[in-house]
Amino acid sequence: MKILWINPVSGINEFDEKIRKIFDSVKRTDVEVEVTHLTRGPPHLEYKSYEPLILVDTLEKVVQAERSGFDAVIIGCFDDPGLQEARELVSIPVIGPGEACMHIASTLGHKFSIVTAKKEALARLEDHVLMYGLEKKVASFRFIDMGVLEMEKEPERVHEAILRESKKAIKEDDAEVIILGCTVETGFMDQLIKELKVPVIDVTVVSFKFAEMLADLKKKTHLSHSKICGYKSPSKDDMLIGVTP
Amino acid sequence: MKILWINPVSGINEFDEKIRKIFDSVKRTDVEVEVTHLTRGPPHLEYKSYEPLILVDTLEKVVQAERSGFDAVIIGCFDDPGLQEARELVSIPVIGPGEACMHIASTLGHKFSIVTAKKEALARLEDHVLMYGLEKKVASFRFIDMGVLEMEKEPERVHEAILRESKKAIKEDDAEVIILGCTVETGFMDQLIKELKVPVIDVTVVSFKFAEMLADLKKKTHLSHSKICGYKSPSKDDMLIGVTP
Amino acid sequence: MKILWINPVSGINEFDEKIRKIFDSVKRTDVEVEVTHLTRGPPHLEYKSYEPLILVDTLEKVVQAERSGFDAVIIGCFDDPGLQEARELVSIPVIGPGEACMHIASTLGHKFSIVTAKKEALARLEDHVLMYGLEKKVASFRFIDMGVLEMEKEPERVHEAILRESKKAIKEDDAEVIILGCTVETGFMDQLIKELKVPVIDVTVVSFKFAEMLADLKKKTHLSHSKICGYKSPSKDDMLIGVTP
Amino acid sequence: MKILWINPVSGINEFDEKIRKIFDSVKRTDVEVEVTHLTRGPPHLEYKSYEPLILVDTLEKVVQAERSGFDAVIIGCFDDPGLQEARELVSIPVIGPGEACMHIASTLGHKFSIVTAKKEALARLEDHVLMYGLEKKVASFRFIDMGVLEMEKEPERVHEAILRESKKAIKEDDAEVIILGCTVETGFMDQLIKELKVPVIDVTVVSFKFAEMLADLKKKTHLSHSKICGYKSPSKDDMLIGVTP
Amino acid sequence: MKILWINPVSGINEFDEKIRKIFDSVKRTDVEVEVTHLTRGPPHLEYKSYEPLILVDTLEKVVQAERSGFDAVIIGCFDDPGLQEARELVSIPVIGPGEACMHIASTLGHKFSIVTAKKEALARLEDHVLMYGLEKKVASFRFIDMGVLEMEKEPERVHEAILRESKKAIKEDDAEVIILGCTVETGFMDQLIKELKVPVIDVTVVSFKFAEMLADLKKKTHLSHSKICGYKSPSKDDMLIGVTP
Amino acid sequence: MKILWINPVSGINEFDEKIRKIFDSVKRTDVEVEVTHLTRGPPHLEYKSYEPLILVDTLEKVVQAERSGFDAVIIGCFDDPGLQEARELVSIPVIGPGEACMHIASTLGHKFSIVTAKKEALARLEDHVLMYGLEKKVASFRFIDMGVLEMEKEPERVHEAILRESKKAIKEDDAEVIILGCTVETGFMDQLIKELKVPVIDVTVVSFKFAEMLADLKKKTHLSHSKICGYKSPSKDDMLIGVTP
Repeated sequence: MKILWINPVSGINEFDEKIRKIFDSVKRTDVEVEVTHLTRGPPHLEYKSYEPLILVDTLEKVVQAERSGFDAVIIGCFDDPGLQEARELVSIPVIGPGEACMHIASTLGHKFSIVTAKKEALARLEDHVLMYGLEKKVASFRFIDMGVLEMEKEPERVHEAILRESKKAIKEDDAEVIILGCTVETGFMDQLIKELKVPVIDVTVVSFKFAEMLADLKKKTHLSHSKICGYKSPSKDDMLIGVTP
Repeated sequence: MKILWINPVSGINEFDEKIRKIFDSVKRTDVEVEVTHLTRGPPHLEYKSYEPLILVDTLEKVVQAERSGFDAVIIGCFDDPGLQEARELVSIPVIGPGEACMHIASTLGHKFSIVTAKKEALARLEDHVLMYGLEKKVASFRFIDMGVLEMEKEPERVHEAILRESKKAIKEDDAEVIILGCTVETGFMDQLIKELKVPVIDVTVVSFKFAEMLADLKKKTHLSHSKICGYKSPSKDDMLIGVTP
Repeated sequence: MKILWINPVSGINEFDEKIRKIFDSVKRTDVEVEVTHLTRGPPHLEYKSYEPLILVDTLEKVVQAERSGFDAVIIGCFDDPGLQEARELVSIPVIGPGEACMHIASTLGHKFSIVTAKKEALARLEDHVLMYGLEKKVASFRFIDMGVLEMEKEPERVHEAILRESKKAIKEDDAEVIILGCTVETGFMDQLIKELKVPVIDVTVVSFKFAEMLADLKKKTHLSHSKICGYKSPSKDDMLIGVTP
Repeated sequence: MKILWINPVSGINEFDEKIRKIFDSVKRTDVEVEVTHLTRGPPHLEYKSYEPLILVDTLEKVVQAERSGFDAVIIGCFDDPGLQEARELVSIPVIGPGEACMHIASTLGHKFSIVTAKKEALARLEDHVLMYGLEKKVASFRFIDMGVLEMEKEPERVHEAILRESKKAIKEDDAEVIILGCTVETGFMDQLIKELKVPVIDVTVVSFKFAEMLADLKKKTHLSHSKICGYKSPSKDDMLIGVTP
Repeated sequence: MKILWINPVSGINEFDEKIRKIFDSVKRTDVEVEVTHLTRGPPHLEYKSYEPLILVDTLEKVVQAERSGFDAVIIGCFDDPGLQEARELVSIPVIGPGEACMHIASTLGHKFSIVTAKKEALARLEDHVLMYGLEKKVASFRFIDMGVLEMEKEPERVHEAILRESKKAIKEDDAEVIILGCTVETGFMDQLIKELKVPVIDVTVVSFKFAEMLADLKKKTHLSHSKICGYKSPSKDDMLIGVTP
Repeated sequence: MKILWINPVSGINEFDEKIRKIFDSVKRTDVEVEVTHLTRGPPHLEYKSYEPLILVDTLEKVVQAERSGFDAVIIGCFDDPGLQEARELVSIPVIGPGEACMHIASTLGHKFSIVTAKKEALARLEDHVLMYGLEKKVASFRFIDMGVLEMEKEPERVHEAILRESKKAIKEDDAEVIILGCTVETGFMDQLIKELKVPVIDVTVVSFKFAEMLADLKKKTHLSHSKICGYKSPSKDDMLIGVTP
């Protein structure tokens, strides 16, 4: 099986390399993984107004992935940009780390806290929690107050800040599970589970494993996303646009 | 005061003209209104995957509007594409017909029904209702089963279909208010109020009046959208992108 | 257009005068505004058990307003006493500052906090938020711990207390919008918006502007409150009571 | 123990007599019951705008009851008019049939349906269900489409209509418990339980038994309604009004 | 009327005796009460995994109670173990202190806090609150951080801890009613009501009084739990198991 | 990796065999699967009162599984009996098909319907949906009106009934995903996906694949269920009971 991880931002070759190694250490032996990113657009998505700048290119990568025989594709950002749009355009499983990891976390404990970058993300996170129907499972949102570019440069500080905010989430907000709500907060999962003694979800790792499972299920049972109503593909008549299949 | 209505689609000059006339008949005497549309992209937004094709151009029009001295701008589609993004980028009121009209309808009766184009919109409508926090005020969603382009051509059929579905919403779903959930369903408000004997919200007319009110409030009290947290503007350092102010 | 503001309490001539001036500074040029109050009953409504003492007189003023040709009427208390009752009895828009301002605030930011007089109001406020369907939009309730009569006498202290509690609401409760949840907290809107750098809703000013908008919409499109089901008028046979139309 | 049932309407001497007999057949041997009604105001409360006409007189009866040594008082209408106001004014238990019976019904089956008079009541019922926090326990609202005065005259038709609507509630709406949502629908409880084979709550009978229990608990443990925050009594300084204690 | 209280644990003879005396002091003169416990299984139910060890024996006691002519039975633990199961098996009222007291508390003030043993109970309590449909009525959960066996030995410390946590619940969480969420927290009701000046619900006392009321209602009107759908009894064909009737 | 599926009922050797074959056809090559059932107790769990008869034996099998080196265990019933209890007792992932499949279904479409055996299950299903926090994702519950034992004997009728009820769920209730809410409804997934053209979740297959994923994640990252608060293990001092570890 072949799985594609799209980093929906530009200029982050090192990060591609980093997570490719992580995938190599957790993937099934029968899985091939490819990591890609965009050639233009912003280097992070901390503002909602940056999303429109990456959506068309991201969707084209998704459509291209299906045509090239990938079995599943992950849009590698916890905000799940373009998730619904992508599901309209292809039939293979499209995974959003936000959606996938919040649902998986819900099966691992009574409530989860999301520990992520900056408080500016709060409104968007709350909207997503509502849309995914998971409002009752959230203990709290906690912020490490670092930007994405900063996080890529200073993993030590990231680790410390995650520890600090996660401990508060567990003690003060009664979280039983921690979700690291940014794909850049990757590489600490094992260590944090030992340190915090609760399940910690590295959304890069866990959404990738979920993609493996869905790709496998699609192969063996044809299960994939719904294509009626919410994710219905634009019809032939509507195919005025490059990106549609 | 100057207000801009953006039709976030292309190739609809006649529709521009039609609603300009409607605005002329309902506007305050001290208001100037301009109607515009995009020069490229799809002619309708019935698919979620069409939205990315209009977002950048729409946001540029919003930013341009503020620079040109407009006092408020309306993104003329009930799905409110780019609403949050636009509010990050400017300080003048940006109005989404979906958000504005659902809240106004909530003050006119116990529950409202949304009567709109096609059932494929259901998931998106439900997501928006959740995000706007109005789930408890919805009696039902009813669909006239016509596409936007079809609706523009056959206003008679649209009128009949709205009547039919609204009556069901009132009788079977206990709606006390009807929202016509597509900007194209415009021009029947007066008539439908007489025929149905309940408040009927033409979202083109009513969101325009709401924009007038917010523009006036901004002038007199400086009230406008929040610029902290959810709608915070990208900072100077992040200004790598044409569209940002 | 003629709009009536009813202060549903007695013995507050100075306050009438104060808000008439405020309305003069924010009203449209084509609007006439009248401010009135009751000739008996309590001077404030801090207890739920005071409401029955003002309801009949308030409703009679509403009915009289419609007969005298007013285009809209505002029941000038954030608790919206008699709002539903009034809508049963007349066909012109009846505005409740609580209902109107909570919905408008919902369109200006992700969540709002209500900063108001005394904590005793909490249960009633929470009930109203539920009834208006806006539970998801509330960040918090904050109290300045001053009674209404005290507030009228000491505007300086009111201003300071609002600043203090609003800052807490923004910082600790993640409010993006502040609603000043008492009609007496009026006159500071402009200043507070500058000081707090978030939208601040003076419910006296903003509900008045909403009344202007609805009165205008009624004139031009016949839109008004629903008269079926929830707000249905008592029938002729039931007209045993002075107050009914 | 002495319990007072107040019919908060006028001109219904026969109904007083009818329910006094019902109370005699279900009461504890150590309980004395008195039934009273108002000397003015409307004969029913089908319109929200009729409530203000009975509130002051009803509250005075409640205050008088406490002074005369009653151990509990029931405001005998399923809409619970004046319930919160009354609890501000006295320390003995004040029971609202709506509130009491919805909570009791919630302990007798998974969901209940309310079978009551006319559909115009729907908005008010839904508001009460929300305020009582019981939204999740409601299977449906069903209406027998008879006015209160009609119901008093034609008990046979009432019985038939209740049977018809309850059967629909059980079959189509999955109700496991039926609440007869009007105090006039009394006298059929035993029979309906046999006919429908589900718990049927005669709100007159059941709220009376709940009042017995609370009166007994007050005697033996001093338990009664909260007097802080929501139901706090007006202070001495505020005692400008006849009705306050 | 005869009422049975089952302590669904073993080895607690003294506690049986203690609460029998409490019941004697609060019961109606026409009620006989019996207190029993199990002969095997754990002495407390602080872990969810202990419940399976007492369920079969508890259900057999319930079935036996109905056969022996008891009019109602209370499963004496705030977690209501086996409540739904028991209602499938008998027709007499089965009372769960958790369910009964949360609903009664909801009628005594705007919101209640549950003050109980250990934080480990939090997830289970939240699940029950959701199942009983009372999420909106909960102000907070507060824990005295003592185990059940500890509590039985040190009533003084229990009393102090309840006072401390209840005061926080009232002041910080705006609770208007306190529920002592463990049957072992009994014997302080009167005193705590005086000390805290809010309604305090001793779940042992109050659920017993609720059982009296339901037993009386069953006698006089045949009202009891629903036996359709949720609580339907296993049919004759299924009677392969000792415990079924 | 070794995975155990426990059928928590007795006397169903043929069913064990059937699903072992299904697992063989969908499992990863590096996974060994074992299927087991109980040696006593009821042959199905259609009544809530049957659950206590299987809980202790089921929990012992779970504890034994961990000791024998299994990497994950599935409690093979959609009602997830003993799920929380089991997670208290072991550290390996314990999967409940109900919980796992409702969350996975939530990632495959806007809303799902559960198509299952008999309407008597409705209350329990609704309780579980609430506990899992997924109320907003449910389109409807539909019942094929067959008992479990009947279903095992007549797969043809099961298939037809599922088709019929699923079509209604899609057309009338706007379901985008179908969950077959009983482990016995297995073996039709592929076929139903083709026939219904929406994702259909065979809970036996899909919860097994989820177990594979969690077992793999546990191996590679130590991720498993939370062991604080909700699922905390009974301490050594409490180890009076055979079943505890």
